[in-house]
Amino acid sequence: MSEPDRFPEPLLRDRTEALLTQAGARPDDARDTTRALLYASRIGVDSHGVRLAPGYAELLRSGGFNASPNYALRHTAPAAAMLDADNGLGHPASFKAMNAAVDLARETGIAAVGVHHSSHFGAAGAYAVAAAEQGMIGLVSTNSDAAVCLFGGAVPFHGTNPIAMAAPVPDTNPWLLDMATSSIPFNRVKLYRSLNQALPAGVAVDANGHPTQDQHAAAFLQPLGGKDYGFKGAALAGVVTILSAVITGATPDPEMVPTDATRNANTPQNVGHFFIAINPDHFVGRTAYETAITHYLALLRNSPATDPAHPVMAPGDREWKEAAERMKHGIPVDPDTMQALGLK
Amino acid sequence: MSEPDRFPEPLLRDRTEALLTQAGARPDDARDTTRALLYASRIGVDSHGVRLAPGYAELLRSGGFNASPNYALRHTAPAAAMLDADNGLGHPASFKAMNAAVDLARETGIAAVGVHHSSHFGAAGAYAVAAAEQGMIGLVSTNSDAAVCLFGGAVPFHGTNPIAMAAPVPDTNPWLLDMATSSIPFNRVKLYRSLNQALPAGVAVDANGHPTQDQHAAAFLQPLGGKDYGFKGAALAGVVTILSAVITGATPDPEMVPTDATRNANTPQNVGHFFIAINPDHFVGRTAYETAITHYLALLRNSPATDPAHPVMAPGDREWKEAAERMKHGIPVDPDTMQALGLK
Repeated sequence: MSEPDRFPEPLLRDRTEALLTQAGARPDDARDTTRALLYASRIGVDSHGVRLAPGYAELLRSGGFNASPNYALRHTAPAAAMLDADNGLGHPASFKAMNAAVDLARETGIAAVGVHHSSHFGAAGAYAVAAAEQGMIGLVSTNSDAAVCLFGGAVPFHGTNPIAMAAPVPDTNPWLLDMATSSIPFNRVKLYRSLNQALPAGVAVDANGHPTQDQHAAAFLQPLGGKDYGFKGAALAGVVTILSAVITGATPDPEMVPTDATRNANTPQNVGHFFIAINPDHFVGRTAYETAITHYLALLRNSPATDPAHPVMAPGDREWKEAAERMKHGIPVDPDTMQALGLK
Repeated sequence: MSEPDRFPEPLLRDRTEALLTQAGARPDDARDTTRALLYASRIGVDSHGVRLAPGYAELLRSGGFNASPNYALRHTAPAAAMLDADNGLGHPASFKAMNAAVDLARETGIAAVGVHHSSHFGAAGAYAVAAAEQGMIGLVSTNSDAAVCLFGGAVPFHGTNPIAMAAPVPDTNPWLLDMATSSIPFNRVKLYRSLNQALPAGVAVDANGHPTQDQHAAAFLQPLGGKDYGFKGAALAGVVTILSAVITGATPDPEMVPTDATRNANTPQNVGHFFIAINPDHFVGRTAYETAITHYLALLRNSPATDPAHPVMAPGDREWKEAAERMKHGIPVDPDTMQALGLK
């Protein structure tokens, strides 16, 4: 494969916003959505990056997303709120919800905002980082359509149900976790297919729910922990479903309409998300927190590795390194997305 | 091996409370500690059950635990508090902290209490269930002394750092997750040694940090996810350390004095815990929550299994089944613990 073409972030931002507004999104919604997509593109998570924009544009045109949603935030208690995303794009709803949680947590110490009637929100980490940029620890979850079997299950039940957390670190990028509760996303199976390589053990099952390493037979995913400890990954997926859907009034994963470009105004997904902001000021205090997180990360990064050529990394280190690289050399874009963005 | 002797819960409760009070614990602290230990014994988690009482008694006598702690709860914000456990038993501190979070969340929707200067608190699930019994979703984490390597790490860094969550379900036991962020606890390695069986792949490493299935060479643990996806388990352990220690002022895992019975008043561990209570009333609302959690669990338990003889289970199903069994037939106790409790 030849090296993909690379583009500067401002150009990709302009083109992505234009694509979304031309498809009917309001300018501020297009801006928020592009912010989330570029976050993923910047840190190297291309599966959740600008390549998603053409599909979103199609759904905006078909009515699969409501292009003029009323994102209604309703404060329900001093540290809680609900946001009805009105079947619009999930990204603007998610920034609004996380910002509302951050605003509440400034006074209350911790706060949460549940979102329902939403849609795919891209990379969960985008919203966790948005909280960290405002000095808060951000926790994010979303449910999604069924793709992962239960432990011992024969059919897909939970979505890949990611959990993200970001914690602010003085003078540098946040500590950052953004993980699916399956071992791999289904995109990765497709990658193994295109490379004609067998899958690792314990990540996928065939159409009958039996574990397989055959990249072509793989029909859906196993929860994190695989054959022996997959009950843990399945339970973590359940944590996500309970927080994101059960307590928000969203659709549970196995009943959700699949995520694809054929949806229309009659088939909303009613995806649910949950956003928590935690304010260190009201626990150990800001100064002590900043000292402690810096100290913890120094301990971690100085901890001996089995292979000295590969030092241990903190969650996020690889992503922020990639972001620095891409800021310098541009963001790689695949040919289909280049075409959709008018870049070739 | 012969079947262990079984005893009714009330007898074990009396004997365990007596053992702790005779070692210097205040009656209410002995009661709370015994409640946590019996919770674990009841659901079949014997590693965290009454067998821990003799070791706690020894630490109370040696000064390893402060027998007369001032458990000081300090409200810091409308939805936040800190509790200084004054190096006392961790269990009373933990019930007090979770109850404080529950009380706050009644009004605020979500609340959190951080605990520092604490000690081993037994099974994390005990406190999550305490929240669920009061109608709240309870989330619990604790850090612990280093036992699990980082992904690619050559030495133990994080503790086994459990995460627990319980969600109330109308008219029955809560949905319940209580998991270490390693695949197995070190106790399990000892079990494989006594059975003279090799370990599963991807759960332990030797003294040099290299993966091993040799139960005798195993020196410490791998994070959940093993050789390929252990970066996820390591990051989850980090979530626990950040919430339990970094934002509470507790000691980070790799600097914590090891958990053993040789500690004294000069070597407090300063363990940290974090307790979150979430009130469904202030999100989707109580009635809708109860309908949704019941529906979700029905979907889950009716989801087809690969082996029809082993239906899929919700997190906690196995534990609550074991509890019903033990309520009927008594709780098994090993010979050493029987002796310490004056049961033989």
